[in-house]
Amino acid sequence: MKNDNRPIGIFDSGLGGLTVVASLKNLMPSEDIIYLGDTARVPYGDKSPENICRFAVQDAAFLARKGVKMIIVACNTVSSIAMDKLGEKFKDIHIVGVLEAGVRACLAEKASSIAVIGTNATVKSDAYRRNIHAVNPAVKVTSILCPLFVPIVEEGLVQHPISDAAVELYLSPLKKNPPEILLLACTHYPLLQEALRKYFEGSRLKIVDSATACAKFAEEFIREKGISASEHGNGSERYFVTDMPASFLRQAKRFLGRELDSFEKVSLDTN
Amino acid sequence: MKNDNRPIGIFDSGLGGLTVVASLKNLMPSEDIIYLGDTARVPYGDKSPENICRFAVQDAAFLARKGVKMIIVACNTVSSIAMDKLGEKFKDIHIVGVLEAGVRACLAEKASSIAVIGTNATVKSDAYRRNIHAVNPAVKVTSILCPLFVPIVEEGLVQHPISDAAVELYLSPLKKNPPEILLLACTHYPLLQEALRKYFEGSRLKIVDSATACAKFAEEFIREKGISASEHGNGSERYFVTDMPASFLRQAKRFLGRELDSFEKVSLDTN
Repeated sequence: MKNDNRPIGIFDSGLGGLTVVASLKNLMPSEDIIYLGDTARVPYGDKSPENICRFAVQDAAFLARKGVKMIIVACNTVSSIAMDKLGEKFKDIHIVGVLEAGVRACLAEKASSIAVIGTNATVKSDAYRRNIHAVNPAVKVTSILCPLFVPIVEEGLVQHPISDAAVELYLSPLKKNPPEILLLACTHYPLLQEALRKYFEGSRLKIVDSATACAKFAEEFIREKGISASEHGNGSERYFVTDMPASFLRQAKRFLGRELDSFEKVSLDTN
Repeated sequence: MKNDNRPIGIFDSGLGGLTVVASLKNLMPSEDIIYLGDTARVPYGDKSPENICRFAVQDAAFLARKGVKMIIVACNTVSSIAMDKLGEKFKDIHIVGVLEAGVRACLAEKASSIAVIGTNATVKSDAYRRNIHAVNPAVKVTSILCPLFVPIVEEGLVQHPISDAAVELYLSPLKKNPPEILLLACTHYPLLQEALRKYFEGSRLKIVDSATACAKFAEEFIREKGISASEHGNGSERYFVTDMPASFLRQAKRFLGRELDSFEKVSLDTN
């Protein structure tokens, strides 16, 4: 078996994609990882498709210049809207997205009903529904916008009456007759799993988290293509951000599950 | 009396500054207005001071190129952090900020206790407290971060249990012994006035809204400098944004109080 010891590149609009990194490090500890969070322009979910594509190309170009063997698009917004654009621009690089991973994980469950929850741009793009229906048009897909979930997670209010109120606000239409799967189509949402489980307690609803699904999908992809790193203990990790606001380290710890040892601030405008 | 018929420039990180425009049009209907909302990079409140200064200079430069007679900084974050920088860069143009206006309005009330509520960057800059204490060090100033208020307003949840829960979350420390003045140091917050009034009902607390204060301050400033537009009926309005997400028109109506007739999308990066 041949090996490819070049790093894996991962990007997200902000720090939510660190949930993907955490899963990936568990699955493939030997892989070197380069993460880019576009914290200067986060969130992407409320931006127009045109700007989302422009930002995504800049993010991917940054990782490409770092010599990565593949790019994982950990941003649901980007992977709902800009994958074609990225494919066109970066023909020589493997690109996988959190959307494709989430869709596959849902379909593998053979569920007949799926509710997709996400940000503005993700839900409005209708990409999850389209991709699910492309494989199985018989699945009932409901899409629900949950714009307050991201700020609630970023405020650390995941176990607070406010998160319960927000879950009730957005998901009460599902309460009476819950779908078989609730797909968390945003890398922030895994942190709300407790509140979501509590709300649907006693129902058959199963939560599929696109961040974990994305890490699993990337692992399979790498193995299939035969581009795994050679086993050499823990791979390196490099973290790049475009801005470092005061809350940066606290947020990073929240998503990564541990302290960030080091990181570098970069500018994408001038690259 | 001489007149100056050049337009007034106003900018904000997003659309919240339209609350200032609405007040300004009431006070000075003859003035031509050019508004810039940096919707591609909103919100500024979670960005670093360095980036906030950079964005502010780009915003002001755009308005300066439009030949405005003065610039109103409707963004609390910018006016807490970047006024010195703007003063240095744009020496030939009058610049007034929502912070100075809010501080003046508070001091005019001769209150002995003021609570300032705002976003991350505004509160962390400590600029409101410093500016109040520069004039009257005896005033007791409390500053409180309310990060969920902006997303709640943008979601139109101003009369919803979630806004009540958020008010309770952030302002319960004030409940027992409310300050004389609650200063709304964010252009989004005027839309939460009802919930805030309800929460402090029966107390002596008075709400000072920095957006209305800013429009009044700009009017006085223009009159004092003798640079009012000649009275010629309704002045023109031009609106520029750096991004037009799907929710743009709905948001604009929320803050301006009426439909936006026309607007133009511009790029600041390439200017």
